[in-house]
Amino acid sequence: MKKIMNQAENYTDEMLQGIYAVHKDRVKCAAGDLRCYCTAEKVPGKVAIITGGGNGHLPLFLGYVGKGMLDGCGVGGVFQSPSGKQIYNIAKEVEDGAGVLFLYGNYTGDIMVFDDAAERLDMDDIETASIVGADDVNSSEDVNVRRGVAGIFFMYKAAGAKAVEMGNLEEVLAAAQKAKDNTRTVGFALTPCIIPEKGKPNFELGENEMAMGMGIHGEPGVWNGPLKTSAEIAKESLDTILKDMPLAEGDEVALLVNGLGSTPLDEQYILTNDAINYLKEKGVSVYRSWVGEYATSMEMAGASISVCKVDDELKKWFDAPVDTPFYTQN
Amino acid sequence: MKKIMNQAENYTDEMLQGIYAVHKDRVKCAAGDLRCYCTAEKVPGKVAIITGGGNGHLPLFLGYVGKGMLDGCGVGGVFQSPSGKQIYNIAKEVEDGAGVLFLYGNYTGDIMVFDDAAERLDMDDIETASIVGADDVNSSEDVNVRRGVAGIFFMYKAAGAKAVEMGNLEEVLAAAQKAKDNTRTVGFALTPCIIPEKGKPNFELGENEMAMGMGIHGEPGVWNGPLKTSAEIAKESLDTILKDMPLAEGDEVALLVNGLGSTPLDEQYILTNDAINYLKEKGVSVYRSWVGEYATSMEMAGASISVCKVDDELKKWFDAPVDTPFYTQN
Repeated sequence: MKKIMNQAENYTDEMLQGIYAVHKDRVKCAAGDLRCYCTAEKVPGKVAIITGGGNGHLPLFLGYVGKGMLDGCGVGGVFQSPSGKQIYNIAKEVEDGAGVLFLYGNYTGDIMVFDDAAERLDMDDIETASIVGADDVNSSEDVNVRRGVAGIFFMYKAAGAKAVEMGNLEEVLAAAQKAKDNTRTVGFALTPCIIPEKGKPNFELGENEMAMGMGIHGEPGVWNGPLKTSAEIAKESLDTILKDMPLAEGDEVALLVNGLGSTPLDEQYILTNDAINYLKEKGVSVYRSWVGEYATSMEMAGASISVCKVDDELKKWFDAPVDTPFYTQN
Repeated sequence: MKKIMNQAENYTDEMLQGIYAVHKDRVKCAAGDLRCYCTAEKVPGKVAIITGGGNGHLPLFLGYVGKGMLDGCGVGGVFQSPSGKQIYNIAKEVEDGAGVLFLYGNYTGDIMVFDDAAERLDMDDIETASIVGADDVNSSEDVNVRRGVAGIFFMYKAAGAKAVEMGNLEEVLAAAQKAKDNTRTVGFALTPCIIPEKGKPNFELGENEMAMGMGIHGEPGVWNGPLKTSAEIAKESLDTILKDMPLAEGDEVALLVNGLGSTPLDEQYILTNDAINYLKEKGVSVYRSWVGEYATSMEMAGASISVCKVDDELKKWFDAPVDTPFYTQN
């Protein structure tokens, strides 16, 4: 294991200390707990949006806390859920009378945590609503049990913009739901990653093998086999997406090509080029693209392609400005 | 070699096609040549700043072309210089009567290229000035032959801000020179990278080995040995920098912790935390930090630490807004 770190057990907390030191004017922690990550730029009367999940996916999840997106994030250890108490503490810090939307990935542990926090807040008469990202098409035929991966970015973006418009809790939830309904993701891995405290790769792949459909914690995908070309990968990924969410000629989409960690931007743009060209062949035009590391698995190599079918409302939300320490859009 | 690509010989051009497709409203190519990368947001009467160099370092070099930084970038193949003709074509596109500053890394091939372009432009009565980044302390005792690495970011930032202030060519050059004089970088690698057309790693490192002082093309460093802890690496890197550029108690610096490609943000922030703490021990405070991938070597693992001693003028330039497709600062 080659990681720039000190003791493995301090990996997440020392990372957080670095983040707070660098961005001290923009984020803070609640209840004196490093892992209760909050914006320092609270907007009075706005619905608060809180996310959370295991560490090891930066900039997901905490990186989207800031102007135009989220208000807080419960940080767990690497690939481990935060606690309900953390989420509760964050909510108490950032909630400002308009209620709280919990927006996070569809993982059993995380669901228990946010449900626990919702119960605690209910006792304080703070209203909450919950929605999970579940965009990973290859993880299940059943949309209700699909894992949440990079496509949650579009949910954050839509809900964040609606909250800035001072929408009420129901409206902010509906914005997240609309982005969710229109978003699908397919991902694939080329190399594994290593959880610092385990010290060993979380799976194995042959020297020329890729894993199509693998999850961002190394969950098995739909096939392991020889590495395909970028054009072949783009085609297969988009075919999977279009089978699940048919698009008609003339439809417009937002496109997110996400690097999993050690895949260079060069390769991400090659893949984006192939994805845009393949969509064009299908008569689908790309309204706007995001390319880069949006939801990683530490040093895993690979990428994901997310497609969100857009209308004027989603376009407006996606174009709204964002300014967080990890993501800026003017 | 596991890369998301098609034919290796098309690696750079397909990457550029992807970049132009995604950012078509903000960048364009000059003379119909994909590798003549220019801003689409030319500012009338402003000194034009042009950089260039081999591909394989994104967001360096082209990523800094945009509002508040650079105006054009000559793109070479992976780790290969662009041509003088490319730089000339870019200059003809972006120059607007105030002359051109060439600002690039201190590599022999690139120097020949920019000198060639300067001669061509001289025949068209276009004034040029040149300065090279040479911040890599471990690459030589002699500051004149040091390689340019991530610290060139501070030169781009200072010169870019001065050009936006409508400084003349001499003043923009002086801003770059001031950032250069005050900046030092130390880098280290944990794993090699692979040039697509070669298909093999550019060097070898043992399973638990690191290479201190290695260059961003795999140039040998000052030692290869067992991987140290983040705190040890931060201390050694900063000791090397402080020996070369002594800082007094009470001095302020800008800090850039740069990931080389496959080093997760988590680790970059752990290293940043250690660097800030070590500087604090020395009585040096960090005015502002940048953490992320600013100058990579494709999938190389490792990082670099750059320190720039700042005064009020440099602070103002470093705080000035930037908005490029790859880097935004409000």
